[in-house]
Amino acid sequence: MDFKYDVIVIGGGHAGCEAACASANIGARTLLVTMDMNKIAQMSCNPAVGGIAKGQIVREIDALGGQMALVTDATAIQFRMLNKGKGPAVWSPRAQCDREKFIWEWRRVIDRTPNLDIWQDQAEELIVENGQAVGVKTIWGVEIRAKAVVITAGTFLNGLMHIGNHKVPGGRCAEPATYHLTESITRWGIRSERMKTGTPVRLDKRSIHFEDTEVQPGDEGNQQFSYMAPHRRLKQLPCWTCYTNSRVHDILKADIANSPLYNGQIQSTGPRYCPSIETKLVTFPDRDQHPLFIEPEGEDTNEIYLNGFSSSMPMETQLRALHEIPALREAKIYRPGYAIEYDYFDPTQLNHSLESKVIEGLYFAGQVNGTTGYEEAGGQGLVAGVNAALKCAGSEPLVMGRDESYIGVLIDDLTTKGVDEPYRMFTSRAEYRILLRQDDADARLTEKAYQLGLAKRERLDWWLEKKENIRKIIEFCDQTSVKPKDINSALEAIGTTPLRMGCKISDLIGRPQVSIKQLAEIIPELKEALDTPQNRKEEIAEAAEIRIKYKGYIEREKIVADKMHRLEDIRIKGRFKYSELHEISTEGRQKLEHIDPDTLGQASRIPGVSPSDINVMLVLLGR
Amino acid sequence: MDFKYDVIVIGGGHAGCEAACASANIGARTLLVTMDMNKIAQMSCNPAVGGIAKGQIVREIDALGGQMALVTDATAIQFRMLNKGKGPAVWSPRAQCDREKFIWEWRRVIDRTPNLDIWQDQAEELIVENGQAVGVKTIWGVEIRAKAVVITAGTFLNGLMHIGNHKVPGGRCAEPATYHLTESITRWGIRSERMKTGTPVRLDKRSIHFEDTEVQPGDEGNQQFSYMAPHRRLKQLPCWTCYTNSRVHDILKADIANSPLYNGQIQSTGPRYCPSIETKLVTFPDRDQHPLFIEPEGEDTNEIYLNGFSSSMPMETQLRALHEIPALREAKIYRPGYAIEYDYFDPTQLNHSLESKVIEGLYFAGQVNGTTGYEEAGGQGLVAGVNAALKCAGSEPLVMGRDESYIGVLIDDLTTKGVDEPYRMFTSRAEYRILLRQDDADARLTEKAYQLGLAKRERLDWWLEKKENIRKIIEFCDQTSVKPKDINSALEAIGTTPLRMGCKISDLIGRPQVSIKQLAEIIPELKEALDTPQNRKEEIAEAAEIRIKYKGYIEREKIVADKMHRLEDIRIKGRFKYSELHEISTEGRQKLEHIDPDTLGQASRIPGVSPSDINVMLVLLGR
Repeated sequence: MDFKYDVIVIGGGHAGCEAACASANIGARTLLVTMDMNKIAQMSCNPAVGGIAKGQIVREIDALGGQMALVTDATAIQFRMLNKGKGPAVWSPRAQCDREKFIWEWRRVIDRTPNLDIWQDQAEELIVENGQAVGVKTIWGVEIRAKAVVITAGTFLNGLMHIGNHKVPGGRCAEPATYHLTESITRWGIRSERMKTGTPVRLDKRSIHFEDTEVQPGDEGNQQFSYMAPHRRLKQLPCWTCYTNSRVHDILKADIANSPLYNGQIQSTGPRYCPSIETKLVTFPDRDQHPLFIEPEGEDTNEIYLNGFSSSMPMETQLRALHEIPALREAKIYRPGYAIEYDYFDPTQLNHSLESKVIEGLYFAGQVNGTTGYEEAGGQGLVAGVNAALKCAGSEPLVMGRDESYIGVLIDDLTTKGVDEPYRMFTSRAEYRILLRQDDADARLTEKAYQLGLAKRERLDWWLEKKENIRKIIEFCDQTSVKPKDINSALEAIGTTPLRMGCKISDLIGRPQVSIKQLAEIIPELKEALDTPQNRKEEIAEAAEIRIKYKGYIEREKIVADKMHRLEDIRIKGRFKYSELHEISTEGRQKLEHIDPDTLGQASRIPGVSPSDINVMLVLLGR
Repeated sequence: MDFKYDVIVIGGGHAGCEAACASANIGARTLLVTMDMNKIAQMSCNPAVGGIAKGQIVREIDALGGQMALVTDATAIQFRMLNKGKGPAVWSPRAQCDREKFIWEWRRVIDRTPNLDIWQDQAEELIVENGQAVGVKTIWGVEIRAKAVVITAGTFLNGLMHIGNHKVPGGRCAEPATYHLTESITRWGIRSERMKTGTPVRLDKRSIHFEDTEVQPGDEGNQQFSYMAPHRRLKQLPCWTCYTNSRVHDILKADIANSPLYNGQIQSTGPRYCPSIETKLVTFPDRDQHPLFIEPEGEDTNEIYLNGFSSSMPMETQLRALHEIPALREAKIYRPGYAIEYDYFDPTQLNHSLESKVIEGLYFAGQVNGTTGYEEAGGQGLVAGVNAALKCAGSEPLVMGRDESYIGVLIDDLTTKGVDEPYRMFTSRAEYRILLRQDDADARLTEKAYQLGLAKRERLDWWLEKKENIRKIIEFCDQTSVKPKDINSALEAIGTTPLRMGCKISDLIGRPQVSIKQLAEIIPELKEALDTPQNRKEEIAEAAEIRIKYKGYIEREKIVADKMHRLEDIRIKGRFKYSELHEISTEGRQKLEHIDPDTLGQASRIPGVSPSDINVMLVLLGR
């Protein structure tokens, strides 16, 4: 053990674990430095993975050969497909997990990964030589050398927790913060700012009046996140909902002067789309109730996560307010909600590979880039880990396109637009939503990942078989006709217009009211075609159905994306001296100089760079 | 939730968990205050429970209705009865456990315990009013009130970790220390001192050359710690042994100047019977090897505990030395060994109930009393928890006798003799060893525990049934004769003298060479008698055999113990003004004044109080 590695990953959270596994899996000798091996991938906030747009990211991580989906499935106690009432572009899987088992499943994944070691310690200094990250020093005085370093320190950098007027240093409840590491990075010119996030109370299940809640069951069946063969283990459990009311709001409002968010104690910005309950009251003063979700923290624990009640109000205020909710009138808590402030680094100083533009071989992923969410962290972690490893091998970096993945959208947004509040993913952030569906991440990414060495043969084979199965179904539907007399009565029964003349099965599937499943019940040959050899028939049928039903939309969006690619393909890095580009607006010049975009496509997305600025550049490039 | 409890337990380690469950189980409304609900009963050092004399304590905890044995069994991956080659007085059970599962099994136990709440926070001030402990304040500013407070803070009080010349504040690897609490206790006149303990490196299993180790399998069968019905779950795994050598020793000795233990950096005393490897080299300079035990940390983790190699030498030195051991020549470590210094409180300021003599309603248990070991902690925790709860109910405290339990020996030693180094239990500390066997803790304690409300009906019933089963076997053996002609050839076959005339089966069992198991193979009626209805036949047969075989010893020791009881029964607290007792030695006077013993028996065990001092007191009492 000579403490020389290819890649060092600092931090064992959702970003760090994916980064470490990805780096090791493509062959780099990797070291994961974590304070606490017992809390690998701890879900610091809600015990759930996925959700709108986030679920798509998890699918992408899986399609790329990452681990989050597999770990989630192995520890899921509830699975739901959100947005199922809307178009498939926004369907989003979400799972509740057993927090304890999630940690230990991740430990097992890491334990079984070749090329990957763990070092239990705390990094406190980045070692930089000749503008290059070459290692870290730890609080125990260990110096570890590497060719690349990935920073995934989450909320630990100079972390400071708040409850009312109480401030406690720490990286997370019961864990010490990390000091000095930020300063050892910013001294080289990397900018750092503060952000804030928060987490709600944890309740004792035994004290909840469930008779005053609504049950929120999971979806039927045994769906999963990973595209791989079925591997769910735990049984499905319900969640519950309840609501705040005006008494709750009155108590919180009356004490708003003691809210660290509103009395100046916390200056940094928290996640807009995951606000504290006090922020909801201030932002939406007219609402007289907000929903709260009562989510179990595991299969057989009393610990309950109260989703929607994040707060850093004084503890007594949190408790008094809670007790005004009928279901929670006698609620006992394990701990109050709290807020935490931490350092992040300006992501516009990163390339799309997540490598720093300032220090070579230094990568950042997760909350240190100003994002929020396990999924956003995991996606970045995977990309940073892959690219750190590719750098060591002297290979070109993996850059994810915006028309290829939500991860690509995420990284392009971060590096192009920067952040001034914690960034979370939404479907609305993606311009090619119909191309970035939860059902087709494997189609988009698995072959590419296999070429990188990230997805293994088994995954590729599974996907290729699935691809062929989907193709056969589509071919069958495109080529097989049905006759009015054989099918009209059944069509009328399911509420769709009968046929006047024969048509292809795919035409029928194209009708909004008709599902492939229903048709299979009517047309025995289709039923047979859906009975694919691969276990996961429902998923395969669904994938085929979406491809048939939304064929037109998908093709149209592909054309748009391809057009856009023309700009994406024009590399401009190093080709302009922006300060001298007087043909374009001052703001455009400044922003272009600041971001130094790779491509004209990226340039076009920089806030403050106008379409006419882009045209000027096109002309100057002679196009 | 009004933060008013009967009993507050501060600290969720082995002492705190037993204390909290015991207090809640006998009906006190109890709050366990722990920094981290995810690390309840964490095995900070070796992943094993029991061992010589410690295994007996675990049996006693079980017989009393405590939890440690049950949790151990549910998570055991190896069970061994140590000292089986010696007399049954010193047989000692020991189990390796899965550290992760141990934590979560304890969490489940606590979760299922009525009257017991958890508060996740850190106590930083004991609230004392009118000389009485009435609550605590936490770092989050919460004030919790109670009628009694139990301190089980382990190594967290002003904890400071050492590796070489690096010092890091913390209560345990990756966890913050607790500040201010010690000072809020000592200001009332309770004395505190520093102690030191340490832990070895953790290894990556994949880097060990197992071909250069010796396998150390567990015992055959599925033995367990608890007297209750069988409930082992995990499969038996081996441990391994290897040895240090002179090259290892040379490396360590050459760097001894950088050992915090030998260069003055650590002033406090560590556990004599669990010394660091550097201490072994200094204490036994002539030994050219020391055994090391390679112990898995769990069922399916790569983490390995290297028992015997505790150290706070500089990390590079630890590693270089390790690499000189053939089996560990390529060993990778997760972290080096480290030492930790922490506060403990003088246990001579405690009553036998573990209540402070200085502050009423304040109890101490575990490492804060200067002990070492999970088992010692658990035993004290149980007693402190019970007594805190009994105090709230206005009941007499539970005081354990020296002839009744190792826990009694432990507490009497602590409160009578005090400690100047971490105290661990040994069979040699008990004068009535043959009465304090691992096989009979239920006989000694379960009925008493049931009366206290600590052992539940199920446990009592199980024991009473077992007691009857044992009685029947002994009766059968005492009453049933065998004839020479029926048995002599078999006796000769097992190597014992043939009979000249008929004798009782119990006489045969009394022979050292003969076991009840062997005889059962020869005498069908005995075999039948051993086939008791209770599942755990082996244990019952063994209990009967020991009682028959060692009847003479047991009876003799009971007589001695009863004699001693005469002194134990003479209560002297408050009956002498020691400073005016000029008839006895100055040292005796001072020590008696300091300890203020409850009974003449306790007085007789105070170091510096002579037998003639005791005689003087007997005379003065008119006996």
